[in-house]
Amino acid sequence: MKVKRLIVDMDGVLADACEQFQIFEERESGRRLPLEEILGKHELEVFPRGHAHVRSPGFFRQAPLIAGGREMLEKLNRRYELFIVSAATEFPLSLVEKVEWLGEHFPFIPWQRIVLCGSKEIVCGDIMIDDHFKNLDLFKGLRLLFTQPHNRPHDSRGHERVDSWDEVGRLLL
Amino acid sequence: MKVKRLIVDMDGVLADACEQFQIFEERESGRRLPLEEILGKHELEVFPRGHAHVRSPGFFRQAPLIAGGREMLEKLNRRYELFIVSAATEFPLSLVEKVEWLGEHFPFIPWQRIVLCGSKEIVCGDIMIDDHFKNLDLFKGLRLLFTQPHNRPHDSRGHERVDSWDEVGRLLL
Repeated sequence: MKVKRLIVDMDGVLADACEQFQIFEERESGRRLPLEEILGKHELEVFPRGHAHVRSPGFFRQAPLIAGGREMLEKLNRRYELFIVSAATEFPLSLVEKVEWLGEHFPFIPWQRIVLCGSKEIVCGDIMIDDHFKNLDLFKGLRLLFTQPHNRPHDSRGHERVDSWDEVGRLLL
Repeated sequence: MKVKRLIVDMDGVLADACEQFQIFEERESGRRLPLEEILGKHELEVFPRGHAHVRSPGFFRQAPLIAGGREMLEKLNRRYELFIVSAATEFPLSLVEKVEWLGEHFPFIPWQRIVLCGSKEIVCGDIMIDDHFKNLDLFKGLRLLFTQPHNRPHDSRGHERVDSWDEVGRLLL
């Protein structure tokens, strides 16, 4: 049987981008945004210095991990043809930082399986795990919406919602 | 009618990687490799300092252009859904250099249409222009083999061979 291709996003799925926006915001203003301010909205809409922070050295390189991702991805990697597909070309500084971040936290993923892109409509596979509707909406296979503050209040729009990496494991292993 | 997706490689198709290996070699040893030494072989097999040069700052950023590519790609971009897909994650330094190089020479290509990857088996589209069999062999659509010294002596293995950007234009416009 052909091994299924599993496509996994980085920000908001493996890397806790929302928490990294909080950390950078707090470092500068001393303030964290309350959950009700960020729920349902893209981070760049709500974090007042978000556009600058996402272009700051270290933003992607030092991003915290989402709980359980590393352990579960190592298991999934044994069962699936795993590719990491991350939107990154909008922020050129993020490119090398993302590759280095993956090398540190996910050393079992070879460079051949890393894709840094703009629009994700060009990738094809069997399963996609992503936190953004715009990426899942264009994908032909099974689509798992990974819960993040920005998508939490919204209807899952026909995609299957997963709230944690444990839940991903229950579905895919 | 749906616009067809055209996938175009960088090194050996838009950027003259082979000439860049010659330039870096000549700068160091004062010698250019004669054509008969490089025909039919991957540049990294034949250029004695190739592995170091491909990891040197500026190798990708200052790569010369392949003749006619810029003008033809601008025309093709009006007719096709154009994506640039380049193998780059093996050499992390190349990532930002490639995006900057595209921005300088092909400013009409937005970041959404740039893909930096490892294996190209993950991208799907209607037409692929590439100089490497390993990329074309995995592609489902029309495959154009762009002639380069490393592939010139070989049979085109079922792919359509194109010797220049003019020839690409005659086929696709």
